Amino acid sequence: MMQIAILGFGVVGSGTAEVLAENKKLITAHCGDEVSVKYILDLREFPDHPLGDRVVHDINVILNDPEVVLVAEMMGGSHPAYEFSAAALKAGKHVVTSNKEVIANFGVELLALARENHVCYLFEASVGGGIPIIRPMQTDLASNQILAVSGILNGTTNFILTKMKNEGAEFAEVLKEAQAKGYAEANPAADVEGLDAARKIVILAALAYGVLIDPKTIPTEGITKITGLHTATADKLGGAVKLIGHTEKIDGKIYAGVSPYFVPASNPISHVDDVFNGILVDTNMLGRALFYGAGAGKLPTASAVVADIIDVLSRRAEERRLPEWKNASAADVAQKGDYACRRCYVIDGCPKCAEKAKTALGADGFETVADGKFAIISRVMSEQEAEAAIAATGVSVVFCLPVLD
Amino acid sequence: MMQIAILGFGVVGSGTAEVLAENKKLITAHCGDEVSVKYILDLREFPDHPLGDRVVHDINVILNDPEVVLVAEMMGGSHPAYEFSAAALKAGKHVVTSNKEVIANFGVELLALARENHVCYLFEASVGGGIPIIRPMQTDLASNQILAVSGILNGTTNFILTKMKNEGAEFAEVLKEAQAKGYAEANPAADVEGLDAARKIVILAALAYGVLIDPKTIPTEGITKITGLHTATADKLGGAVKLIGHTEKIDGKIYAGVSPYFVPASNPISHVDDVFNGILVDTNMLGRALFYGAGAGKLPTASAVVADIIDVLSRRAEERRLPEWKNASAADVAQKGDYACRRCYVIDGCPKCAEKAKTALGADGFETVADGKFAIISRVMSEQEAEAAIAATGVSVVFCLPVLD
Repeated sequence: MMQIAILGFGVVGSGTAEVLAENKKLITAHCGDEVSVKYILDLREFPDHPLGDRVVHDINVILNDPEVVLVAEMMGGSHPAYEFSAAALKAGKHVVTSNKEVIANFGVELLALARENHVCYLFEASVGGGIPIIRPMQTDLASNQILAVSGILNGTTNFILTKMKNEGAEFAEVLKEAQAKGYAEANPAADVEGLDAARKIVILAALAYGVLIDPKTIPTEGITKITGLHTATADKLGGAVKLIGHTEKIDGKIYAGVSPYFVPASNPISHVDDVFNGILVDTNMLGRALFYGAGAGKLPTASAVVADIIDVLSRRAEERRLPEWKNASAADVAQKGDYACRRCYVIDGCPKCAEKAKTALGADGFETVADGKFAIISRVMSEQEAEAAIAATGVSVVFCLPVLD
Repeated sequence: MMQIAILGFGVVGSGTAEVLAENKKLITAHCGDEVSVKYILDLREFPDHPLGDRVVHDINVILNDPEVVLVAEMMGGSHPAYEFSAAALKAGKHVVTSNKEVIANFGVELLALARENHVCYLFEASVGGGIPIIRPMQTDLASNQILAVSGILNGTTNFILTKMKNEGAEFAEVLKEAQAKGYAEANPAADVEGLDAARKIVILAALAYGVLIDPKTIPTEGITKITGLHTATADKLGGAVKLIGHTEKIDGKIYAGVSPYFVPASNPISHVDDVFNGILVDTNMLGRALFYGAGAGKLPTASAVVADIIDVLSRRAEERRLPEWKNASAADVAQKGDYACRRCYVIDGCPKCAEKAKTALGADGFETVADGKFAIISRVMSEQEAEAAIAATGVSVVFCLPVLD
């Protein structure tokens, strides 16, 4: 019997207990022994739950029990999740987590602590919910240089954008519907302002480049300003508006940011709809790989937590090669203005203005997307170059979206 | 310095040398030491290749050299690849391979040999080229019961079907073009008759269910009978015709087969076009995950071989948990007639016939797809049930495709 503890018995925590129970037979086969939840740490009591008698309120009960070999942290938020994780690692217990906030803010420190104490610290469930992405990037893609990672990393905003596209609806009304259905929270800021995606893209950037950037410092734009004109434009051009977390290297520095993009239909990520997530990894040998699936939800996310539990418990003897990250300094990080891609400008005016913009942006042509509104897709240009070029024409810009080719 | 040998210096073998050279720095970092190709086994000489002086023609040189810790087998075909792999494992050398034929035919035996000799036998590159799928199924999805696996597993046929769809062209002309472009071989039978996909789906079925079925015995239908009417029908219904390898359990027995399917646009695999592969895994906790990327090609496939090399060499001390498969007996395998799904029938006749077929198949309606040709999508029925129902109506069936929902 291998004893573990669950920290936080909310959606993912209780889901983890459910996955462990439901798939007990195969999990036991993988681990070579039964996995048992000895403690559940939560402020609440769960008298009606079959594991209700395992609930404790003091982390020290868990830390001081030598039988507990692994702690699964699913508390959410930075504190006390960070302190509890650090204490568990120091106590020589493996830690697995779904907590993107803790990884994005304290990943460097916690990974170092894990290495010092010869235990594992795994976090597959922190990005893309149940979608395998963290471990594949560390193992399957280990033979490749990562050129870029671009992901639909937030299910709530993807649900809203898909609805806006399919129904020609505006942001505010779809948000209300999403809230009614439980797909968006009462306070949706972390999702719709892009903060959740920002935490996830800095984790992916750290996996790709070994440097963890403070998520609060990266360029982050959500979907609150997306209108019917954006979705109509994307439709006209053949593609979709998607909220994308993107990272790549620019002249040796790391760019990471979150913003709405125009994604042409030729890019497989343009077909990732509803609450699903999709993560596109560009590499120097394999080319492009896409990982698609349920990016959130109780059982999908819990199944990734349990995959980490199996990974640790089935190879307990082994000191895992945990990634060695460092925290980013200003010199590591590329400027937003230097990020180069094609850009979709929608301007207000006459065909003559569109002609002017077309020339300035090195575009092949322009498309009428509404009365007096024209879309022009620039050649690949840095943001500052494109902005200077369009400003010099004097045409009135309604909006600009980077293009994810 | 860690010494390895490459068996077979064709497309994938030379690609592996290229990946090792191109990404040397990161591979060294992962393995903790430099990986060096000490021998290349091939019948030919490669005097102009930088590694030309490593070429040997006698496998015993490699087997008898204790410095060689790993053998990468990329010879293709069953023999002598199987014998050489077995000999290398017996000599205590790890083996990694891209050879789907060897795994599909001798996987049980070679995995057992590897376990006996406390070495690894890995085969990530054997299915889906460079796409991570074998290792994710063994690790990331280990917490899930696999309900079904459905894949576009052959790039050549997907290229042909995509062209047929986009250009309304017929099979024979597109095949010629694919051959001219080097996407299809002069003798395209293994691809277009579905044999290549059959080998891959039995490997995926073995990963899912632990039982390896002889690929020659599974129901296998290629794309040679696909016509413009098939693609026009799929277009009309909103979706695409795709060659799918599919496996699932039916009443405790394993069904595995290859055939063209109608894939509705709502299934993400319907958007996997051109030479790309996509593999959809249905699980009981995560739900559906899709793995997408380059399913063939020199560097993509080689990058998967090198990922296996890194996996072995970076954890050399560890005795890996290799899957324990058994060879299928007749009692393990489900009958094709019992495989239940929705089915798309196209019939020849009048609207009255279509009405009759609709009722017999429990369909919601029918669609006119050409002059006097009607498409009816049945409810979920086993093949034998559907065939009996349609036969009883006496209507003339032009073709029937299973539907991948």
